[in-house]
Amino acid sequence: MSDYYSQELHGPYELLDIGDLTLEEGGTIRGCQLAVATFGTLNAAKDNVILVPTWYSGTSKIIQQMYIGLGRALDPEKYFIVVVNQIGGGLSTSPHNAPGPDGGSRFPKVRIGDDVRAQHRLLTDKFGIEKLALVVGGSMGGQQTYEWAVRYPDMVRRAAPIAGTARNTMHDLIFGETLCDTITSDPAWSNGDYRSSAEVHRGLMRHAKLWAVMGWSTEFYQHGRPAQLGFSSLDDFITNFMFGYFAPMDPNDLLCMAWKWQRGDVSRQCGGDLAAALGRIKARTFVMPVSHDMFFPPADCEREIAMVPNGELRVLNSIDGHLALFGADPAFLQQVDRNLKDLLATG
Amino acid sequence: MSDYYSQELHGPYELLDIGDLTLEEGGTIRGCQLAVATFGTLNAAKDNVILVPTWYSGTSKIIQQMYIGLGRALDPEKYFIVVVNQIGGGLSTSPHNAPGPDGGSRFPKVRIGDDVRAQHRLLTDKFGIEKLALVVGGSMGGQQTYEWAVRYPDMVRRAAPIAGTARNTMHDLIFGETLCDTITSDPAWSNGDYRSSAEVHRGLMRHAKLWAVMGWSTEFYQHGRPAQLGFSSLDDFITNFMFGYFAPMDPNDLLCMAWKWQRGDVSRQCGGDLAAALGRIKARTFVMPVSHDMFFPPADCEREIAMVPNGELRVLNSIDGHLALFGADPAFLQQVDRNLKDLLATG
Repeated sequence: MSDYYSQELHGPYELLDIGDLTLEEGGTIRGCQLAVATFGTLNAAKDNVILVPTWYSGTSKIIQQMYIGLGRALDPEKYFIVVVNQIGGGLSTSPHNAPGPDGGSRFPKVRIGDDVRAQHRLLTDKFGIEKLALVVGGSMGGQQTYEWAVRYPDMVRRAAPIAGTARNTMHDLIFGETLCDTITSDPAWSNGDYRSSAEVHRGLMRHAKLWAVMGWSTEFYQHGRPAQLGFSSLDDFITNFMFGYFAPMDPNDLLCMAWKWQRGDVSRQCGGDLAAALGRIKARTFVMPVSHDMFFPPADCEREIAMVPNGELRVLNSIDGHLALFGADPAFLQQVDRNLKDLLATG
Repeated sequence: MSDYYSQELHGPYELLDIGDLTLEEGGTIRGCQLAVATFGTLNAAKDNVILVPTWYSGTSKIIQQMYIGLGRALDPEKYFIVVVNQIGGGLSTSPHNAPGPDGGSRFPKVRIGDDVRAQHRLLTDKFGIEKLALVVGGSMGGQQTYEWAVRYPDMVRRAAPIAGTARNTMHDLIFGETLCDTITSDPAWSNGDYRSSAEVHRGLMRHAKLWAVMGWSTEFYQHGRPAQLGFSSLDDFITNFMFGYFAPMDPNDLLCMAWKWQRGDVSRQCGGDLAAALGRIKARTFVMPVSHDMFFPPADCEREIAMVPNGELRVLNSIDGHLALFGADPAFLQQVDRNLKDLLATG
C-alpha cells in the first residue's frame, strides 16, 4: 500500500493501543489502535475537553487544518481538543493495516457504536477524562457525536452533529450501497484481495464521480465553484480533485467505513425506538445540516432534533453541500464557528 | 433480445418510416423508424395537435396510461395527441433493433435535436401538421419540449417541459456519467457486444439502485412510500420494483438515451448563448419542475424560465421526486392536469 496514511501526510498523530475491542457484530479487533491527534492542554479540572471524531475518508489532518486554531471555536489555548480517527479510516486500525489474519478482505464489520466505545475507553483509561465540554463532528463524525450523546448522556455536556443524522435514512443507506458498488464492481478489487489501490483505479474513479454528484450540489457547479477552486474544466475537476483525493485511499478501508456509515443508528440502544434514544440525550445539542446537502439534508436532521430534549436546529448555508465540510467555503466555516461558540457559551 | 419492446407490452403503436436521418454528430440513421401512438382525431383545421415526446426508459405506454384520458388535460375527445417514442428508446429505431451494420454497439450518437427534427419531419410530412397546440413532456421529454419551442418557435403555441431543463446542468451531466458507469463497468456488457440484457443483470441492478437514490427523494423513503406501493422492505422495493423495471431493457438503448440526455442543450442553436436561444421561444411556456427532484430541481428550472419571454414557473409538489413522472402519486397527476388545462386555456 502507498504511504498515503503516513505521519508525513496526516500527522502528527499518536497511535494508542486500547486493547482488544469486541465488536457489536461479533468480531474482535485485537490490540485495537486509535490514531489520536491532540491540541491544547488538559486543565487540572479535566473539564476543557473537546472530542472530534472523523468522517468518511477524512482524518485528523483536515480537522486540524480547517477547524482548529487560535480565535476559532476549537481554540487550543482554551480547550484540550482530542481528534480520534475512526476505525477503518486508515490511521487507526483498519483493513489495510491490520496485522493479524483478519486484515484486508477479512476485516470484521465495525459499527458506529464500536468506535464510540473505543473512544470512551481511550478517554477514560488513557486520559482519565470524565466529562466532555463538547463532542463535535461532521458526517460520520456527526453520527458518532449522536452516538456519544445517547450512549454516555452524563458525560457529554454539549453535542454538535454537523451534516449527520442519529439514525441513517433509507435513502442514505441506498446511496451508500451505490458507493460500495462502484468499488466492488471493479474486477480488480477481487473481493478485497487486490495488491494496491492503484489496481482498483477504475472503481475508485467511479467512486469519485458519484461523490461529485452527491457530495456537492447542482448550485455548486452552476455557480462555477470548480473554476473558483482552480480547475479548468469539469474533467479537470473530476480527475484532479475528486479522483485525486480518493485514488490513494485503500478500497477496503473505504468499504469498512461505508458499511458503518450506512448502519449508523442510535436507536439500537433502545430496541429500535428512536424517540426513546434521542430522549436520553442530556447534552445541549446543536444539529447543523448543510442547506444543500443531498444525503444528510436539513429535513432529515430537523425531524430528529425535534426529539432531542435540549436540541436546536442550526442550518449552515453553503452551495458546497455535504462537502462544505472540506472547508473550501470560508463562509461555511464562519457559520460553524459562530454556532460552536454559541454552543460553548451555554451553561 | 427479450420481447420487452413488443406491441403486447407497449402497444398499440405504429412504426412510421421517415427516411434517412442525418445526425448532428455526423452519423446517419438509414430508414429511421419512429414508433408513434396517437389518440383522438385530427380536426379539419389541424390545430388540435398535442405532441408528447418520451423520457428515458419510458415509452408511449406510460403516457397513455397515466396522462391521457377523458376529462384529463390530454383529452382525446378534444385533441389529436401524438406520442412519439424517442430514438434509442427501444420502440423507435434503437441500438437493439437497428437492422444495419450500425446496430448494437455501433449505433451512432443521437442528440435531442435529432429527435426533434425527426418528429418535425413526421408531423409535417406524414400528417401535414403546421401548428402544435401544445408540446408537453417529462424529463428527456421536457428537454425535447424545450428544443421544439426554440427550434420551431412559429409552430409551437404552447410548451410544458415537466421535470426537465433547456440546457443540461453540469451536475446532471455527471449524474448521467455515473448511470452509464453502472452498466459499462459490468464485464458482461462487453463494450456493448452482449447477447442479452440478462447477461448484464449486475450492471442493470447497479443502474436500478442509483435510480433508487436519485429518482425519488429522502422523503419518499422517510414517509414509507415503498410500503404504500406494496413492497415489504427496501430490498423488495429495489429488486422487484426498481430492478424489475429496468432489468428487461436493452443496455445499449439505455446508454444511447443517457448520452443524449446528458447533452441536451438548446443553446447549441445560438452558438452557446442560452439567453438568446430561450429568447426565441414564442410559445406560452409553463415549466414544471418537481419539488423534490434531485437532478432537474426547481432551482435549475427557475433560472431558465426567467429567460423565456412568455414563461412561467409552476412547481409540482411531490415527495416522489423526479419519478413522480411514473404517476404513482395521484396528487402529482392532478397538479399536472390543472396546470396543463390552465395552459391550454390561454389564447
